[in-house]
Formats: sequence, structure tokens, C-alpha cells
Amino acid sequence: MHFSDYIRSNKEVFESRFFDFLRIPSISASAEHKVDMRCAAEYLVRQFQSFGIKGEIIETQSNPLVFAEYTPEKVSADAPVILVYGHYDVQPPDPLELWTTPPFEPTVRNGNVYARGANDDKGQSLTHLFAVGSLLETDGTLPCKVKFVYEGEEEVGSEALHQYVYSDAGKRKLACDCILVSDTNMYAPDTPTITYGIRGILAFDLVLTGPNRDLHSGIYGGSVYNPAIALTKILSQFINADGQILVPHFYDDVLPLTDRERRQFADLPFDESAFFSNLNITAGFGETGYSVNERRWTRPSFDVNGITAGYQGTGSKTIIPSQASAKITFRLVPNQVPEKIFDTVQNFLPSIIPAGITWKLERHHGEAAMCLDLDGSRFVEPMSVALEKTFGKRPVFTREGGSVPIIADCQRVLNADVLFVGWGQEDDAIHSPNEKFSLDSFQRGILSSATFFKEC
Amino acid sequence: MHFSDYIRSNKEVFESRFFDFLRIPSISASAEHKVDMRCAAEYLVRQFQSFGIKGEIIETQSNPLVFAEYTPEKVSADAPVILVYGHYDVQPPDPLELWTTPPFEPTVRNGNVYARGANDDKGQSLTHLFAVGSLLETDGTLPCKVKFVYEGEEEVGSEALHQYVYSDAGKRKLACDCILVSDTNMYAPDTPTITYGIRGILAFDLVLTGPNRDLHSGIYGGSVYNPAIALTKILSQFINADGQILVPHFYDDVLPLTDRERRQFADLPFDESAFFSNLNITAGFGETGYSVNERRWTRPSFDVNGITAGYQGTGSKTIIPSQASAKITFRLVPNQVPEKIFDTVQNFLPSIIPAGITWKLERHHGEAAMCLDLDGSRFVEPMSVALEKTFGKRPVFTREGGSVPIIADCQRVLNADVLFVGWGQEDDAIHSPNEKFSLDSFQRGILSSATFFKEC
Repeated sequence: MHFSDYIRSNKEVFESRFFDFLRIPSISASAEHKVDMRCAAEYLVRQFQSFGIKGEIIETQSNPLVFAEYTPEKVSADAPVILVYGHYDVQPPDPLELWTTPPFEPTVRNGNVYARGANDDKGQSLTHLFAVGSLLETDGTLPCKVKFVYEGEEEVGSEALHQYVYSDAGKRKLACDCILVSDTNMYAPDTPTITYGIRGILAFDLVLTGPNRDLHSGIYGGSVYNPAIALTKILSQFINADGQILVPHFYDDVLPLTDRERRQFADLPFDESAFFSNLNITAGFGETGYSVNERRWTRPSFDVNGITAGYQGTGSKTIIPSQASAKITFRLVPNQVPEKIFDTVQNFLPSIIPAGITWKLERHHGEAAMCLDLDGSRFVEPMSVALEKTFGKRPVFTREGGSVPIIADCQRVLNADVLFVGWGQEDDAIHSPNEKFSLDSFQRGILSSATFFKEC
Repeated sequence: MHFSDYIRSNKEVFESRFFDFLRIPSISASAEHKVDMRCAAEYLVRQFQSFGIKGEIIETQSNPLVFAEYTPEKVSADAPVILVYGHYDVQPPDPLELWTTPPFEPTVRNGNVYARGANDDKGQSLTHLFAVGSLLETDGTLPCKVKFVYEGEEEVGSEALHQYVYSDAGKRKLACDCILVSDTNMYAPDTPTITYGIRGILAFDLVLTGPNRDLHSGIYGGSVYNPAIALTKILSQFINADGQILVPHFYDDVLPLTDRERRQFADLPFDESAFFSNLNITAGFGETGYSVNERRWTRPSFDVNGITAGYQGTGSKTIIPSQASAKITFRLVPNQVPEKIFDTVQNFLPSIIPAGITWKLERHHGEAAMCLDLDGSRFVEPMSVALEKTFGKRPVFTREGGSVPIIADCQRVLNADVLFVGWGQEDDAIHSPNEKFSLDSFQRGILSSATFFKEC
């Protein structure tokens, strides 16, 4: 039997097994669900076993990792190793009263299954497991080596997998040529999408101190530098009206967009006025010469995430605050290095700090951007073919503005190509009440994944 | 007997009566001291009675006012009416454990009496009552008409006196030519001081709104205007590096300093490096061309009292906040009008608000500055003579940077000259534990005040 017939004829079986997964309230954020985390991990091991693959539980200091691999007996010398990444933990379902049906009782309505984790990431990540299983049930083997790693802490920081991938055992076990991740959405409905790049990040606090205590603004106003005003003076010099970041050497390592990328992005349908009116703003803002998607996917950005200074209650309090601080993030693009960017900020600040103000930076996390070389990766064409065979059209190529620290870690350690190929839809309400996942997407995900493994 | 001999020979009597006043815990901030407020008011009425002056309690919706007046039988046609202002309420004494002796058990150490309210304002304001009493006991009359008003809410906003002075009854009853206030300190020890001007104030909030919700800074960063960044851009345009406020027409009505004032201020001892090192800052900041005291007393200033935007917890949160707001005060000088200044800000903002950001101003209080015309007031020379006779030297003339709303109200309604003549010292720890007042200052205050009334 052809694997695609097998997948189609087992539609209800796969859905039924998927729904069992959804019934496990594997909420990583609450300690009371500790046992459920293990149940979800063991559920995955059983799924592998059902296809004759040995799944194993890797104990960690917190929730276990699930690892499985399938090595064909006969495989060509240049056959790649594909590592599928997924996570079995889900977001808390609160507020419960907004769910139409209970979050851990999967319910089908209009071709979608509603449940916490339906999209993120149980439904999406299960497609690859069922794809490999279907190939083994029909062909009896695979043309490449496949590994799986599922973690139980994606929603709470991925600590265990982070430690594991940097360990010797982890590096060995997870070694691969390609990391395949289904934890994103399609660019538009029925539009197969390969997300080949994500931005990096550098987060830090800038803390300014002026006088050693809050001062009476009547007695001192006009004679000392107010740190809250200093903060506005300093931060206003980080970016200009053309959206260009003014920190010297900030753009030194930025990899320019290729003409091919710009053409691809320009071809994507994008309703700019709907984008902004949905946010209730009359105009966007960004770097001159770039489209909205180019700005948020492929160009670095500067944001102030929060400011704290002085009195914040009702009415007024006539003080010159002693301190003012800002939480700052830069989104980074290839080939910017977070450590170097932090240094450029540290070198820039002394030139713009007014006399009478002292400053310090408190660094938070940093993460480099990732971007697959579309021409250089051997996995892009097989996936494109797989998507075209399944969806009837070639995929669109997008990048994303956020960062996915654990995938960036894996990519760095394992030195593998990363393909984000998501089956979700923008309105799937991940992290919100009434999360859903289309059963068509589930089926097409399994078909696409199986086809990809065959094409590799 | 000469009044000065009477005052000297009654030193201990006056001190003993003063200490009785200090024993009343008239803390206006706590409801549980309601009865003590009335006791303090009645104490004052008894003091007036002891000198044959009828004191009266004026009921209000909160703590009573105490009013008294003395009209000589024979008085010249151009004899002025002097209104003494004082307050019988005190600050809470917390933290109690930091007091060497209990706050409401006045204790004399090294020529000072330690108690809550010793300086602010029981000791200072009693001097005028005992001065008038001493004149009546010795001369049997006064060369001018004297009125007194004591309020019981100075530390909590002066609401009752504010309402009273704007009422018809209040306007009539408090009508005067000069308001005499002892609620400030001397510029330096043993340095008689006339404070002839205070700054005004305009307080408001600037609230900026960008997108209708906090946005993921990865997905949107670089494509929308961040309101926290907008706030830094906008506020940084309010003042330049020379300390000049950039709001158009802001300085239109500013009364320039006279040469006489500049000379007087330049002659005052001022240790600039101690002033700044006491605040633990290496440098001051202010309007080019003005000294520190000129900047804080006589020139308008711009301060940001607080900023609120986005995430303020520990670590980082990668958002573009929906809102950012700042609490702003301008200190105003003669002849700036708070309403006009508010209008100049409202007119200025549209020109500097970026596209994609909406704004609103929320106005708080406004108060014009006050400044006595030193050459035009008939009360400056009598007070100078009185101070010289008591202290053996002419007074220094200072202005202050803060504002005293209730005195500004009285000045406006009664259209009277205001003399701030304080007997306190910088280290008297008003509003702090171990508040004190020098008994020498108390005595010299009574002598100076009596001499002033004689000279008027």
C-alpha cells in the first residue's frame, strides 16, 4: 500500500490517538501536574513502540525528555539524519470559563479539534511521529535516519533540554543534519510555509542614578540633572526618525537581504492597512526603505519594554527621582553577535551620559538570529516538493521576528539546518481559550512529513 | 517696662506655655487625633485670652480654624493690618523608635527643645502671639491692627482654610495689608532672613498610547512606534543641554531678575561643592548664565517626577507596551500664569508627537509664583529694622523654589504683601525624628516680631 493511502485510511485512528494525547493535562507551569507530565512522556513512548521504534525517557532534574530514533538497515552513505523537535507540555488553560468545551476533553466542531495543546504543540509535533510510523507500516523502512526529541518544558523555559543539548551525551544523541520543527503557523490558510529564519535578541536594563535620594522638586528643581529626564535624553539618541539605530557599529555585521528574499516577501499577500487598524493605530513606523514584513522579520529593531522612574501613583508628587531605569531589547539579525552588540552599547553610553548622572547596564539574555541559506541547504527542495505534492502548490518562504531560544541552542550545538514548517493557522488561539487545530491540517501535516522523509 | 525687658524676663514662662502646646499630639493625618486637634485649637484661644484678646474657633467641615484680632482704640489713619498665619497641626512622628526622647514630651538639650512641631509650626507661629501679648502687657496697645489665623490642616492640604479664604466671610475677616508667616528657616545660623518670593507650579500627566494592547516585540518590533520610545523622544524635546525649556512662548511672561537681586544672592555664602557632594553627584545642571540659587529660586524649571511604561518586574519581558506616561511639573516664576503655560504645552505637543501615537494631558494643580516688590512694600524696612535690632545685623533676602499653595491663595484673595520670616534652622529636622527648635530662636522670634509691630 502506498504510504499516502495508509495515512488517509488511518485518518480516524490517528485522530483518536491524537485525542488521547490531548486528554492528558500536561501543564508544565503547575507543580500539581507533575504526574501528568510523565503520563504524556509515556504516551509518546507507547506511540513509538506501536510502530516498532524504541522510545526512551531521559530523566532530567525536571520533566523528562522523550527520545527515539530509527536507523534503517540499508541506507545510502550520504543519507541525512533528521531530528524532529516537539514539546508535550502545554500552556495553562485559564481562564476556564471562556472555553466552550473543557480544555482537556477534545471536541470536534467544523473540522477542528478544540483542546489545550491541539495546535501547540501536540497536534503539530505528532504529525511527524505518525508520518514515520506510516512509512514503516507500508515501506518497512525509511530512506534516512530519523531522531525525535520531545521536551516537557517549552512553555516554561526549556531548561532541561538546554542542559541536555550542551552535555556530551546530548550532543552525541541529538547529532543531526536537519532539525525539523512544527511549532509555527502557515503564512495564510492553505498556504504551505517554510519559515527559514528567526531573529535573535539582546535584553538588558539601563539604570541611571542622579542624587542619592528623591529630592523636593521645588527646592532643587533647575539645579540638578533629573535622572528621568536623562533617561529620555539618552534613549532618544538610540534611534532616529528614519527608524535607524544610532549606536555606532550596531549594523556592522548585519547580513543584507538578498534580492530573492525581497522578491519573495513582496509577493506575499499583506494587507498593511488591516495590520495597523487591527492595532488601532493610524500609522506604522520603521526603517526607511523596508516593507513592514522586512522590518519585523529581517531587520534589527530597538524597543523599550518598560520604564520605571519616580512616583507612579495617582495625582502628583513633586520629586526629582533618584533613579530611572529602562528595560531594553534589541532584536538581532544574522550575523549580529549579542555579546558584540552589548559591547557597542557599553561603548556608546559614556558619550551620551550627562554630567551628574551615573549609569549601569544589567544584562539579561542574548541569542543570535538564525537563518537557513535557502540555496545552500539540501533540505529546502525536498520539503518544497513534499508540500507541493500535499497542498497542490509550492510553499512560501517567510522569516519570523521572534526568537526561539531552545532551537537556537540546538542549532548552535548540533550545527544543523533548521526548518520551521508549521501546520497551524493564525486563528488557532494558541495560549488562549478555545485553542483549536484543523483536522485537515493534521492529515496534511502527516502526509507532508512522510513525503519529506521519502524525498530526503 | 520696655517690651523687650518683659520678653526677656518672661523667657521661662513663654517656654513653659510653648511646651504645653507641644504636649498636644495634634497630628492632622490621623483620624484618631481628632480630639487633640480641638485641644490644640482651644489652647490657642486660651493664649489669646490670657492677653485680653478674644480668640474664636471657626468651625469647618474638618479641623477648626482659630481666628483672633486686636484693634487698637487709637490708631493712625494709615496704620496697616497685619495678618499672622500659622498652623497648629503637626506631621506624624513615625518612626517612633528613632526619637531620642518621646515626640510629645518636649525635652530641652543644648538650648534646643526636642518635640514634634517644635519648629513646624508651633514654636515659630507662637512667637507672634507672644510678641503681641508682650506689647499689650507693656504698652497696653499696638501701633497697628493685628489679626491671626491658625489652621489645623497645613500638613494635609489646607482644605478648610482654602475654602474659608475664598468665602465672603473669610475674605472680610482675613482682609489685611500684610501676611506674616514664620514657617521657613533662616538662610544660615544667626542670619536673619526675609524670604520674599516663592515659585509657582504646574503639574500634569502626559499619557501616550500606541497599539491597543501590549505587543510581542519579536512579532512587531521595528514596525510600530513604541510609546515608551515616543515618550523619550517627546520629553527630550522639552529642555536642551543649556537647561533652557524649549516649549515655545514658555518664557514670554518671565520677570527677569533685577541687578539688586543678583547682587544680593551673589553675596550669600554658598558652598556649591558641598551642596552637590551632599547629594552624591559630581555635577549640577541648570540654565546657563545663572547661579545655583538663582536657578532653584528664581528661574522656571522642568522636571519629570515619574514615568510609567510597560513591564517593570525582574528580568525581561519582550513587549512593546501599549501605553507610556509621565508625571511632569514645571516650577513657575513671576509673572507666569499656570493656565497659559498649560496652553503652551498643549500647543507644543502636536508638533512633536510621532505618527501612530495618540496623546492626552491630565492636569493636576497649578499655582502662580509670588514675589514681593522689595522696593514697593512698606513692610520690608520695618521688618529689616526689627531683625537688625534683634540679631545685630541686617537680614539677607532670599527666595525659595517650592510653592506654598495656601499662602498663595491668601495672597491672591486678600491682595496683601507676604513676608516669610522664619526662625528655624536647616538642621531642625522638620518632618523627621528628633525635630527641634532653638530656644534662642524662640526668644529672638518674639523680640523681632514685637519690634516689627512697633515699627509698622
